[in-house]
Amino acid sequence: MAELSRRRLLGAGALVAGTAGAAAVVGPRLVSDPATGEAAVEPFYGPHQGGVATVPQRYATLLAFDLRPEHRTVAGLRSIMKLWTADAARLTQGLPALADTEPELATSPARLTVTVGYGPTLFDALRLTRAQPATLRELPAFSVDRLEPRWGGGHLVVQLCADSPLPVSHAVRVLTKNVRSMATVRWIQRGFREPIRTEDPAGSMRNLMGQVDGTVNLAGSQFDQFVWDHGEDQDWFAGGTILIVRRIRAEMDTWDQLGRDTKELVVGRTLGSGAPLTGHQESDEPDFDAHVGGIPVIPPNSHIALARHHKDSEQFLRRPYNYDDPPPAGQISDSGLLFLAFQRDPAAQFVPVQQRISDGDALNEWVTPVGSASFAVLPGVREGEYLGQRLLDAVDRATNGDNG
Amino acid sequence: MAELSRRRLLGAGALVAGTAGAAAVVGPRLVSDPATGEAAVEPFYGPHQGGVATVPQRYATLLAFDLRPEHRTVAGLRSIMKLWTADAARLTQGLPALADTEPELATSPARLTVTVGYGPTLFDALRLTRAQPATLRELPAFSVDRLEPRWGGGHLVVQLCADSPLPVSHAVRVLTKNVRSMATVRWIQRGFREPIRTEDPAGSMRNLMGQVDGTVNLAGSQFDQFVWDHGEDQDWFAGGTILIVRRIRAEMDTWDQLGRDTKELVVGRTLGSGAPLTGHQESDEPDFDAHVGGIPVIPPNSHIALARHHKDSEQFLRRPYNYDDPPPAGQISDSGLLFLAFQRDPAAQFVPVQQRISDGDALNEWVTPVGSASFAVLPGVREGEYLGQRLLDAVDRATNGDNG
Repeated sequence: MAELSRRRLLGAGALVAGTAGAAAVVGPRLVSDPATGEAAVEPFYGPHQGGVATVPQRYATLLAFDLRPEHRTVAGLRSIMKLWTADAARLTQGLPALADTEPELATSPARLTVTVGYGPTLFDALRLTRAQPATLRELPAFSVDRLEPRWGGGHLVVQLCADSPLPVSHAVRVLTKNVRSMATVRWIQRGFREPIRTEDPAGSMRNLMGQVDGTVNLAGSQFDQFVWDHGEDQDWFAGGTILIVRRIRAEMDTWDQLGRDTKELVVGRTLGSGAPLTGHQESDEPDFDAHVGGIPVIPPNSHIALARHHKDSEQFLRRPYNYDDPPPAGQISDSGLLFLAFQRDPAAQFVPVQQRISDGDALNEWVTPVGSASFAVLPGVREGEYLGQRLLDAVDRATNGDNG
Repeated sequence: MAELSRRRLLGAGALVAGTAGAAAVVGPRLVSDPATGEAAVEPFYGPHQGGVATVPQRYATLLAFDLRPEHRTVAGLRSIMKLWTADAARLTQGLPALADTEPELATSPARLTVTVGYGPTLFDALRLTRAQPATLRELPAFSVDRLEPRWGGGHLVVQLCADSPLPVSHAVRVLTKNVRSMATVRWIQRGFREPIRTEDPAGSMRNLMGQVDGTVNLAGSQFDQFVWDHGEDQDWFAGGTILIVRRIRAEMDTWDQLGRDTKELVVGRTLGSGAPLTGHQESDEPDFDAHVGGIPVIPPNSHIALARHHKDSEQFLRRPYNYDDPPPAGQISDSGLLFLAFQRDPAAQFVPVQQRISDGDALNEWVTPVGSASFAVLPGVREGEYLGQRLLDAVDRATNGDNG
């Protein structure tokens, strides 16, 4: 192919040219953003994968894959894990992937992270259910759900986040291309966010319904308490976490018919500052006991009254993105929230909150969950390891009768 | 609807709340980007619309509309123009649109521009062909074209550009919603770009094939010479320009099979720096006469040899964006270039170049034009005017027999 093309290109002539390796011609690696001076590289190696506790980047693409039937084996999965680990270790650091065909697209990673997870169906397909974390389950059905199969499930997920869409596009291409003979893309979801306060990139964002989103979130030692698995159920999973993906469509046409006051009562916060209706600043604690004339100031069926943790154990990490896709014919918007929640155990953390929301949230009339998926986000790796290695090595030992 | 919802929300209770106007609660307008100190607002009023000579923003969405049959009248078009002018005049300046239902999404415009144009079919549909600029024509068919109707045509176009996707999403929603009873969305195309050198945002970008793109471009007085209409054919069009939209799919799977040297011979530039094969820096003039061993260093059928202007008159403004959309089932990429060219007269400027490319560009094997459209970008407006007013007032005068 290349030779044919070259001949076609040269027409009557012929040309001798050196064959410099791709890596040799790549320019200097950009390790900091000249505009802000901030480091533009996130670490790859460590006890946890990036893209969870990482300060949220502005762009996210989630890719779900299914293994092709002939590759639904431990060997097939290991091949993919080795490829993705090698790709992610380089691309996140601003280095081209091995045999990268567009190496220049790798040089400005803009805090790229690559986060790999396994769906419950993967453990079934590979007959590894004994190694499946007990916390990795499909979510129960909620009465508000209108789930479309095209936005759910998947053997594998890769979450790619960066502060620019270019490195995300490049990484999507590299990771997909390198495993295309072994896996097919099941779905792709893309989102964007910008922090409300530029100086607080980890703070809340504004969703496309106009609400301040992500005010209540985890920090510091709460990650160990609420996010990272401790390996109590499955040794290999220590340092991992469970990702819940919910695609929540905003019913913008009816939402926009509401008056501003009504919207604020539905949410329980003001639209301007995001302050609870009982407060003045976004960070003010809502006072659910406040009444005026015998009527609660924050309606008990408002979104914050129900979405907030009622028990300490119901806390989890929210890392949402907006989505805004081309609408179907005859409609003018297809937008909403790509709600990404990370926690040790969704059954104890996410599900009770979602059940409360499903049962009574005033906001339900204007939002519709259309996609849902759960994944076990793998623990991080040390240099020389590959993602999932602890699991796959354990499987090998078990298969060989060497359980010690 | 609002009352029903409010009652539902409050359940047994009732609540009295003030009805503050939406605009009153919006926070301070952000007029500069805190990260860079650069102004984040582009002017709206002036002899030309923004989004043409404007330093290219990072995100673009192009929306094509068709007037609904019952609104294919001068009065229908005037209504839309008045609405869009009012919306654009506010949104570009960081102010919510009138009756904006998500006013907070308007406060960080990130250099938002709104650029409105008319397609040839609009002049037909409204029987205004006598007022149609002679330079506004459908492009001739090129042998390389594989045009899909879903990416072509349109009575009206709106190009929305900003340095963040959030204000673009909001503006798309506002402009579409406000005219939905009069016009339907025909197509939506979205793109992104980032400058190769952060310190030179008007400079070239890198496309998803890995090439440096946009090296040769116009500046300064060349805009008057090559871009802005002078009203010689149609008085009302002075200050406007013609936009050519070409959706050019990259055939990434076969492109990636080429060796790096072959790719560089196809393009005529190095992939690393974008320098011509006869030079060292991107800005070096290519030397098409240079030979080594009797063979031209830059192949005569390379992309730069053909895409470059051969006559002075063939120059035009390139303002391209990358696109990267979810691929069809079974494929792994649907990416390419949203090629946007602005010029006074495509027949004299763009078409000869495109004809040369179509006839012999080595790159044709790896790129496929799948969409094509032409629009007359309206002249800019002064405060108090609306977009298209000079045309529509002239039509009124002609209809009333007052041609003076």
